Amino acid sequence: MIETDALVIGAGPVGLFAVFELGLQGVCAHVVDVLDEPGGQCIELYPDKPIYDIPGVPRCTGRELTHNLLKQIEPFAPVFHLGQQVESLEHQPDGRWLLSTRNTQQTSQQFLARSVIIAAGVGAFVPKELKAEGLTPFLGKQLFYRVRPTEAFAGQHVLIVGGDADAVHAAVTLARPGDNQARSVTLVHRRDSLQADAAELSELSALRASGQISFEAGQVSAALSRDQRLTGVIIDTPDAQQLVIEIDVLLVCQGISPKMGPIAQWGLTMQRKQLTVDTATFATSMPGVFAIGDVVDYPGKKKLIVSGFHEATLAAFAVAELLRPDAPHTLQYTTSSALLQQRLGVL
Amino acid sequence: MIETDALVIGAGPVGLFAVFELGLQGVCAHVVDVLDEPGGQCIELYPDKPIYDIPGVPRCTGRELTHNLLKQIEPFAPVFHLGQQVESLEHQPDGRWLLSTRNTQQTSQQFLARSVIIAAGVGAFVPKELKAEGLTPFLGKQLFYRVRPTEAFAGQHVLIVGGDADAVHAAVTLARPGDNQARSVTLVHRRDSLQADAAELSELSALRASGQISFEAGQVSAALSRDQRLTGVIIDTPDAQQLVIEIDVLLVCQGISPKMGPIAQWGLTMQRKQLTVDTATFATSMPGVFAIGDVVDYPGKKKLIVSGFHEATLAAFAVAELLRPDAPHTLQYTTSSALLQQRLGVL
Repeated sequence: MIETDALVIGAGPVGLFAVFELGLQGVCAHVVDVLDEPGGQCIELYPDKPIYDIPGVPRCTGRELTHNLLKQIEPFAPVFHLGQQVESLEHQPDGRWLLSTRNTQQTSQQFLARSVIIAAGVGAFVPKELKAEGLTPFLGKQLFYRVRPTEAFAGQHVLIVGGDADAVHAAVTLARPGDNQARSVTLVHRRDSLQADAAELSELSALRASGQISFEAGQVSAALSRDQRLTGVIIDTPDAQQLVIEIDVLLVCQGISPKMGPIAQWGLTMQRKQLTVDTATFATSMPGVFAIGDVVDYPGKKKLIVSGFHEATLAAFAVAELLRPDAPHTLQYTTSSALLQQRLGVL
Repeated sequence: MIETDALVIGAGPVGLFAVFELGLQGVCAHVVDVLDEPGGQCIELYPDKPIYDIPGVPRCTGRELTHNLLKQIEPFAPVFHLGQQVESLEHQPDGRWLLSTRNTQQTSQQFLARSVIIAAGVGAFVPKELKAEGLTPFLGKQLFYRVRPTEAFAGQHVLIVGGDADAVHAAVTLARPGDNQARSVTLVHRRDSLQADAAELSELSALRASGQISFEAGQVSAALSRDQRLTGVIIDTPDAQQLVIEIDVLLVCQGISPKMGPIAQWGLTMQRKQLTVDTATFATSMPGVFAIGDVVDYPGKKKLIVSGFHEATLAAFAVAELLRPDAPHTLQYTTSSALLQQRLGVL
């Protein structure tokens, strides 16, 4: 159980800037994100695309923005809990919030937080599920989502579902001769049209030509099992045939999509599938729970990073006021305030 | 008379970013500022001090922030009208706004604008006035505020009032032997304690020692004139003496201070000496007139640049909607929108 003054849900640019503004207010934060690295959409959707509308930054990529925000919050040493999705939020008798997260290994972490800032963006980026009968029991044992191929799959019959760069990368990595080579690699995608780097597509072609990767057009429709072990899958082909492929491991790389997920079940007031907030404090309908960024709605709201930065700032002030109601809350500036400069470690 | 879709009052960081967001919306802007260069407080108050709380910019000076914002708005080629203060704002029968400015030479410029964004910060930075009897008629003729010394003062008896870097700089520049040397230079300040660069203070000492600059501790209390010409001033000294100094030119370098100025007289709804705005659009109480940055107040308002950037963004959307009520106003992103990238000149 981790106790904290502030828990930020979401490590996208807005969540990261909330950590900064909390830090200026003298509040240390823990940050939870479902992705394996900070950056949110910036890293997941456009790491190398230029962004032109960050104020004072004529051009930066999603990765550069994330990098700069991480550098900016360094003085406040936030604790990141990555690859974890917050499942539940429960009010405690002492006014604090109990949050429970879950990671891909289905293990759980509990937090007891005096304040919560939800910066969940368009939702948690979770892998698109492979919907086929009988698969669920094998999750984390023989069924994996978007796991980078490791030596654990060496010598096994691996079937990869997907047609994007991740799927192609997994296929060539596992099929490449070497210690970590799989016994067999089959790539299954709806049609024989794959999206990846030219270099990896060409390696894939070579491995297909030499028989080290099999490709099947089609969709996985059902799992075959014996003695509680996944032994194969059935593939429905475009010409209405069914193929049976024997496997040890099923790797699903169908991309990710954002899902509001459990947040919608916490009882927070919502409208238009967004959290309703007070624009003076970015408080939600529950005391001590704030929300900022793309997950919120208010009159005039635009889903822009620049607005999220402002929202993060006002939420951080509100958190500070909640945690220290009796302290003076005069506005100070980083250019001139010795206190803020001490907190930033530059004085 | 200049006709424009949008006039931005104030070229501080928030006004500059409003130009950017207007540009993304396809709206060209004219910008008026009382200072001689863009940047507002960033340039006037802390050009070389670090700012730490611009999101995604761990550290930049006021000058660097201004420079980066100017670079960012380059694609939208705003027209700057510097050294001008907006005096009046009048609603026209066709719905547009007539604005009249005045510069230090007392000349005037008229604008007819379909929309106005007031980003006037803590007010117009105007020189602190020298309050002494009989001076007013000589303004712009023999009495000047914060004018960089020029050849116009060569060969003249110049009296400089002030004790800061500008005053010292003016004194040494005018007293230095050369073509532009004044006939005599007198520096008057309340006490013999001046604030300037070490190099200029040392040059000043040398010029005082050699008699090329006279220093008098005291305050100008009255002007002496003959035939509508300023001929001298009376200085009240700390020991209650009165000195008469004959002069041709009086240069006042007493620093600047922000003044709300004429804006308070335009009939806009205000509270706590700030303009009241609707946080969905940053509209003021008058149609087509918006306000953003330190000049506004609303519940939760913090006078921070990060908030001004958000306010500028929503105001620009509202201006676009006002100018083109029938156009679609779906949110587009600079990372992905061909239209925005064309406007930015990067496609």
